[in-house]
Amino acid sequence: MSDLNQDQWFTEVFDSHGSAFALRISEKLLDVQSDYQHLEVYATETYGNLMVLDGCVMLTDRDNFLYHEMIAHPALFTHEDPKRVVIIGGGDCGTLKEVLRHEGVEKVTQIDIDEEVTKAAERFFPSLVESNNDPRAELLFADGVKWVDDAEDESIDVLIIDSTDPVGPAEGLFKTDFLKRCHRILKPGGVLVQQSESPLYHSGSIIRELRSDMQAAGFESVATLPFPQPVYPSGWWSVTLAGKGASVERFREEAATGHEMPLQYYTVEAHRGALALPPFMRAAFA
Amino acid sequence: MSDLNQDQWFTEVFDSHGSAFALRISEKLLDVQSDYQHLEVYATETYGNLMVLDGCVMLTDRDNFLYHEMIAHPALFTHEDPKRVVIIGGGDCGTLKEVLRHEGVEKVTQIDIDEEVTKAAERFFPSLVESNNDPRAELLFADGVKWVDDAEDESIDVLIIDSTDPVGPAEGLFKTDFLKRCHRILKPGGVLVQQSESPLYHSGSIIRELRSDMQAAGFESVATLPFPQPVYPSGWWSVTLAGKGASVERFREEAATGHEMPLQYYTVEAHRGALALPPFMRAAFA
Repeated sequence: MSDLNQDQWFTEVFDSHGSAFALRISEKLLDVQSDYQHLEVYATETYGNLMVLDGCVMLTDRDNFLYHEMIAHPALFTHEDPKRVVIIGGGDCGTLKEVLRHEGVEKVTQIDIDEEVTKAAERFFPSLVESNNDPRAELLFADGVKWVDDAEDESIDVLIIDSTDPVGPAEGLFKTDFLKRCHRILKPGGVLVQQSESPLYHSGSIIRELRSDMQAAGFESVATLPFPQPVYPSGWWSVTLAGKGASVERFREEAATGHEMPLQYYTVEAHRGALALPPFMRAAFA
Repeated sequence: MSDLNQDQWFTEVFDSHGSAFALRISEKLLDVQSDYQHLEVYATETYGNLMVLDGCVMLTDRDNFLYHEMIAHPALFTHEDPKRVVIIGGGDCGTLKEVLRHEGVEKVTQIDIDEEVTKAAERFFPSLVESNNDPRAELLFADGVKWVDDAEDESIDVLIIDSTDPVGPAEGLFKTDFLKRCHRILKPGGVLVQQSESPLYHSGSIIRELRSDMQAAGFESVATLPFPQPVYPSGWWSVTLAGKGASVERFREEAATGHEMPLQYYTVEAHRGALALPPFMRAAFA
C-alpha cells in the first residue's frame, strides 16, 4: 500500500463504489470557480492535460478519443441521414469535432451553460477545438433545457446529451420530463444519445432508469453501448441511444466501414460488439 | 484532491504510467510471504474480496469474470475441438473453472509454482475453486517452464499462460524461447493464449513485442483481444492468441452461440468485436 501525496497526484474518489483513480500531476494550469462549477486543469505526467469539474475527471488528452468517438459516431451512423445535430453540454468541443467529421451534417449547435469550459479547452486542449471554426458549427453558452424548450417541433435529426454526471448542473438532463421535451424536437427517425455512466457500477441503477425513462418519454427503441474509458469510474463507460420511430439496434454499416475519418477506436465491429451487450448487463436491464 | 488513508484503502500505483487505482478495504484477511511472492487478501467494501501479489491487484470477486472468461473462451472456441488443455499459472483456479465449462474438454492440467495462491483461493474465493474436484482437472504446484519442457511433442490442444506481469516470477513466460517450447508441445491446430497487459499502456511495447515473439516462435497467426478489466492498470486489458497452423482470427461461432454456459461477459459479438481491434492498436502493431 502506498499513500498518494496530494501535491503530486490528482485523486478522484468514487465514494459510493469504494474505488478511486489517480493521475500523477506535474502542474496545476487553471483553477476557476465559474458561475456553475469548479473548473481545474492540470498537466499530468503521462496523460497530457487533465480537465476536472467539481472534483470529477472530465477528460485527458490521452484517452478522450474513446468517449468522444463513442458518443458521436454510433448515433450518427444509426440515423439514416443526419443533417441537423444538437449537442447539449459538450463544452470541451471534442464531441463537436467528431460530429463535424460527417460530411452530410449541415449544422451542429452546441449549447453548454458554462463558457469557461470552452475557454479552458481553447487554451489547454487545442486538438479538441480545432473544428470550432467550421461554418457548420454554432456555439452557444446558454441553458440547454431552455434551448430545447424554445426549439421547433420535429426540427432535429440527432440530439447528443454530452453532460456531466447526474448530480450538480446536469441533474435535470437525466429525467423523463427532459427526455420528453427532447423527443418533441426530434424529427421522425431522430436519434438521441446520452452518456450513461459505468456498466459495472450503474447497470442496475442509473442506466436501467435512463432506459426506462427514455421509453416513458416515447422512444420506441433503446440501446446501451459500453466502451472502455480509463479515466472514468471503473474504467468502463457507456452511452445510451434512443430512437424516435427508428431502431437504434441497427446502423448504416456500409457508411461506417467506407468512411475516411481518422478514428482511433470506433469501428463497425466495435459498434456491433457494443450493441450485443454482455449478458450481465442484459440481465440487469431485464 | 484527496489523500487516501492507507488504513482504509489498498492502492496500486502504476509508476511508469503515472496512474493509480485504489479500493476501499474493511479488513486484511491474509498476509503471507510465500517462497515466490508476497500474497495478501483484503475484504473490500464494494468489490468483495481482493487478492494482491507483490503489491499488484490480481483479482476481486466483483470483476474477475471479465478476465477469466476472456482468457478461456476465445481460445477454446477458436480451437476446432479442444480436448487437452494446460494452464500455466492460474493458481486462483478461475481460468480452470471457465475451461471446465466446455464439455468436450477431457483433461485440464493447471501448473502454478505457488500453492499458497490456490490455498488462498480455497479460503477466500470459494466460487473460483468450485470446479476443482472435477475429475478432468489436475492441479500441480511446480515450475510451469520445466513442466512444458518435460511434456511430449504435439500433446496439447490449448495452452493458457495465465501469468502475473512480465516482472518477477513470470518474467520468463514472456520470452521467445519459452514460446518456442510451448509451440513444440502443441498439436497441429493448437492454440496458445497469454494475458498481454493494457491496450492503452502497452500496445506499442509489451503487446507488440509479445506478438512479434509469438511469430518468431513459429506461430503463423496472432490475434490480440482487448476487454474491460476495472481493477487492472487503465481498466482495460488484453489477451493475445497464437495459432500453430491454425488461424486465430476466426472461431467456432455456432458453438459460441449455442452453448448453455452461464457467462457474464463473453458473447460471439464481443469476440468478433475484440478481434477487429481499435485502429490505434492496429497502428501500434503495424
